Amino acid sequence: MPIFNAPTKDIQFVLQDLLKVSEQDIPGFSDLDRDFTAAVLEEAGKVANNVLAPLNTVGDQEGCVLENGVVRTPKGFKEAFEVMKEGGWTAMDCDPEFGGQGLPYVMHTAAQEPFVSANMAFNMYQGLTHGAYSAIYFHGSDDQKATYLPKMVTCEWTGTMNLTEPHCGTDLGLMRTKAEPQADGSYKVTGQKIFISAGEHDMAENIIHLVLAKIPGGPEGIKGVSLFIVPKFLVNADGSLGARNGVTVGKIEEKMGIHGNSTCVMNYDGATGFLIGEAHKGMRAMFTMMNEARLGVGLQGYAQAEAAYQNAVAYAKDRLQGRDVTGTKNPDGPADPLIVHPDIRRNLMDQRSFVEGARALTMWGAMLIDRAHKANDDAADGLISLLTPVIKGFQTDKGFDMCVAAQQVYGGHGYIEEWGMSQFARDARIAMIYEGANGVQALDLVGRKLAQDGGKHVMAFFEMIKSECKSHDGDDRMKGIVDPLKTASKQLQAAGMYFMQNGMKNPNNALAGSYDFMHMMGHVCLGLMWVRMAKASYDALDNGASDKDFYETKITTARYYMARQLPACSMHLARIETGAEPVMTLEAANF
Amino acid sequence: MPIFNAPTKDIQFVLQDLLKVSEQDIPGFSDLDRDFTAAVLEEAGKVANNVLAPLNTVGDQEGCVLENGVVRTPKGFKEAFEVMKEGGWTAMDCDPEFGGQGLPYVMHTAAQEPFVSANMAFNMYQGLTHGAYSAIYFHGSDDQKATYLPKMVTCEWTGTMNLTEPHCGTDLGLMRTKAEPQADGSYKVTGQKIFISAGEHDMAENIIHLVLAKIPGGPEGIKGVSLFIVPKFLVNADGSLGARNGVTVGKIEEKMGIHGNSTCVMNYDGATGFLIGEAHKGMRAMFTMMNEARLGVGLQGYAQAEAAYQNAVAYAKDRLQGRDVTGTKNPDGPADPLIVHPDIRRNLMDQRSFVEGARALTMWGAMLIDRAHKANDDAADGLISLLTPVIKGFQTDKGFDMCVAAQQVYGGHGYIEEWGMSQFARDARIAMIYEGANGVQALDLVGRKLAQDGGKHVMAFFEMIKSECKSHDGDDRMKGIVDPLKTASKQLQAAGMYFMQNGMKNPNNALAGSYDFMHMMGHVCLGLMWVRMAKASYDALDNGASDKDFYETKITTARYYMARQLPACSMHLARIETGAEPVMTLEAANF
Repeated sequence: MPIFNAPTKDIQFVLQDLLKVSEQDIPGFSDLDRDFTAAVLEEAGKVANNVLAPLNTVGDQEGCVLENGVVRTPKGFKEAFEVMKEGGWTAMDCDPEFGGQGLPYVMHTAAQEPFVSANMAFNMYQGLTHGAYSAIYFHGSDDQKATYLPKMVTCEWTGTMNLTEPHCGTDLGLMRTKAEPQADGSYKVTGQKIFISAGEHDMAENIIHLVLAKIPGGPEGIKGVSLFIVPKFLVNADGSLGARNGVTVGKIEEKMGIHGNSTCVMNYDGATGFLIGEAHKGMRAMFTMMNEARLGVGLQGYAQAEAAYQNAVAYAKDRLQGRDVTGTKNPDGPADPLIVHPDIRRNLMDQRSFVEGARALTMWGAMLIDRAHKANDDAADGLISLLTPVIKGFQTDKGFDMCVAAQQVYGGHGYIEEWGMSQFARDARIAMIYEGANGVQALDLVGRKLAQDGGKHVMAFFEMIKSECKSHDGDDRMKGIVDPLKTASKQLQAAGMYFMQNGMKNPNNALAGSYDFMHMMGHVCLGLMWVRMAKASYDALDNGASDKDFYETKITTARYYMARQLPACSMHLARIETGAEPVMTLEAANF
Repeated sequence: MPIFNAPTKDIQFVLQDLLKVSEQDIPGFSDLDRDFTAAVLEEAGKVANNVLAPLNTVGDQEGCVLENGVVRTPKGFKEAFEVMKEGGWTAMDCDPEFGGQGLPYVMHTAAQEPFVSANMAFNMYQGLTHGAYSAIYFHGSDDQKATYLPKMVTCEWTGTMNLTEPHCGTDLGLMRTKAEPQADGSYKVTGQKIFISAGEHDMAENIIHLVLAKIPGGPEGIKGVSLFIVPKFLVNADGSLGARNGVTVGKIEEKMGIHGNSTCVMNYDGATGFLIGEAHKGMRAMFTMMNEARLGVGLQGYAQAEAAYQNAVAYAKDRLQGRDVTGTKNPDGPADPLIVHPDIRRNLMDQRSFVEGARALTMWGAMLIDRAHKANDDAADGLISLLTPVIKGFQTDKGFDMCVAAQQVYGGHGYIEEWGMSQFARDARIAMIYEGANGVQALDLVGRKLAQDGGKHVMAFFEMIKSECKSHDGDDRMKGIVDPLKTASKQLQAAGMYFMQNGMKNPNNALAGSYDFMHMMGHVCLGLMWVRMAKASYDALDNGASDKDFYETKITTARYYMARQLPACSMHLARIETGAEPVMTLEAANF
């Protein structure tokens, strides 16, 4: 069985040394001192290590079973879910008015990471509930909040998001599910939704489905979509559960991975639904949650890579195979451990430098969300809006790649299911697809976010990097780390300039380079994080930090990322500057 | 169910327009005229499309089942295997003396490709047999050949290769399986072998295991390894089957993919074995087959991508989602097909340009093997020896990536098993691992092949590219295609120069860049193929070829590969030139 140890120390480094959370001028952040965040992470780590991780393989092998309309989750999931509920892990950043702990989102995100690493499929049950909570919290009526939120905060009731239909995913304007108004103000919802994570299961008393549907007679396309609450059991006035609603699970999908999560076809047959917010404004409610949801998926990307990396390292230290060409390292053994070999190290350093960089970017992103929401900071809101498709798209692509890389360290043992390395790759694969496939993230970034508010946010981003680099002028220790960021940032700006100059006459000149731009910007973001982490590490060492190894390792890893990963930017720029022509020339019929 | 149509026309293009096989001065090649190869490919395509492809999903879902020591292959495999045998598809390039057809290896390779695309797991049963045939053919005694080969040529008996043991894969010198000499000249083989593809199944009367083992008292390590024939049933003097030998299947592995192939743990308990060739020279026999076997795995890489690509194209043309930003393409429908979107096209062009380039490289490689064997051409032998790790390593990495890319076109439908896109990725993943994991290929390339025979072969490779580029001087149509190859080739030479100058003082300066070098050289090889294919296409058009669309598409695809893929070389060079330091600095304990 794979190992897992929550990387508590590294998350703590990000919160305290890098982000210095308790010094931030954001309401609630002054409580996040070193001792407090360490204690929370310590406890979260225990749950992840001891409760969730041991169920990861079980979930993969057993999967979810649908029998007579009831979905049975894998053995042990129910008990683990109780542990999560009792520990308050489902309520951390929820409003205290509804039973939450009111902590910052960045604290919630930091505590969630080890849960996702330990058991991604399991953690989705509460993750989806959190998303549904947010939709009702930000857009529901006071009555709706009072009725649903207290039970959702505790995950006594779980939630789902119902968007996709068989014929439409990205293009939700094509949606057919309809919601017919009733005399009592409710709606009758009819239609079929697919790919509904946690759509039906045996771990909660009630399931609160949030369903996008069209009210007949409304505007065409995406402007006619509304959002509805459709509870599995209707809720009586006194809060008790009433009649079973007309929503049933049609089947469970067989998937490449995340077998522990029940991915359902949901059939709505005149089910009673309640409008959230205004009619035809359903997409607005979706968009509110999007930054959080996409950041959560971006976290899944690197969190799976973290778990896979830990195992790859353990195997590389343990497995004896071949000899170090520069001199035997294990003279008493029949061979040296794999980790002596340069290409194995190259692989492990790729993984490590990605994971730690992505962790920093994600936590910084979570803090920006707090700053936007709690401090009403428009600049932070603009910046996280810009960064969101990068965090989601780049981190899930690379997260999957790094799971595959970790699997490769095992040779043939990585391909058989026994060692668990296949599962990390299979589970991580979905994160590139759901919550907006990564091509759609690239489109969002280049087609929308770059030009948002007159390009203000991307300008601010470049300014931030410029002044970050400038702040290290004259610091010889930082030079080798900062210079590659300068170069990469200039290349990213050149790509943006190319889009501006050539996208006007033909938008495909920009869109054909959108995927490259997303990856390029991902590297620049991680480069920025590594510059900041290296600086924080030098500061800690200068201040006489006791754990020298930790900080020196951080600086070595920073140097690796800058030397070995940032050169990708020149490739992406070269591709981008070839424009639409190579991509668009072939007639569709000739593919 | 996924579609598959054998790409007969494109394989024929490679054989005839690109390689001009019938004009080659290699014994047997003059028979390979257009009509002949077209007829063979046509028939192979029918078997692939109608017999093998429909069983691909079946194989994945049913897998192989071990009950009471007997392995049951998926439903329909047995009947399909009969079709393969009856059609003579297992005997194409085997020696007529033993019932083969004596055709060139390049013809065998060309005919195999659609089988591998259609059903990789199934085709391994005959693929492994072919490998075992070669080992006996090149190293066995006349008696051994007479006893085993006629039945192996027809696949009445299948073969296996037994190398890996639980504690050793790459480092076979650690092997523990022992072979004790008996008075009658035979050996008693005892030990455990793992990951034995087709180790036990129900499709053949007998299974001929080729087993690496150590004769006690022989040299230490890899120099003490010998190769043995261990038949499942001993063969009587009259050719009839005798006693059951002491070899049994321990278990079938649960794997990420290729479920249709039975991957077995094989236990040898004093099984009777017969030495092939000389004692302690077992690795020599293995190496003889390595170029062929690794080329075959490199073929698997792009052959899976071919199948995945075909489906991705069909889906992209069929699925309506969103609108072309430059103007609606399907005004009568609710949305435009996916293929109008630049990022979808970028993805499809990546796949297409890789697959067709890799096909050309593989067939050229197969022809070089023919030239080396049949025309005793040492230069060809040296060149294919150099190219083999690139064909295997680069093509299986990219082949897998392209299967993942094809899966991505489907969005959520790519992740569920129903559409079959997950299987292409899961199946393709193994090719990066077996027959020498890709890191080992990179090591072979940089640590051995570059310097082989004083660097003669890599020099010849660079000369070949130089004169290829020169031959297009003044041809304006080719300029945009040739220039990127010139640049990339210079970068590859610069990388080689870096290794020479820095690898002397520390070999890790070369080995830390070995993986990048392998990929860089892969791009240069495919670039070379695209230059030649573009030229062949212009020639065809100049000569009034009727199928203009085909040749123009080829040129467009060439331009895409050069513009969008060759820029990767600058990234790889930049990484290589950072040397060992970023990779090797971290102490093993700090990973």
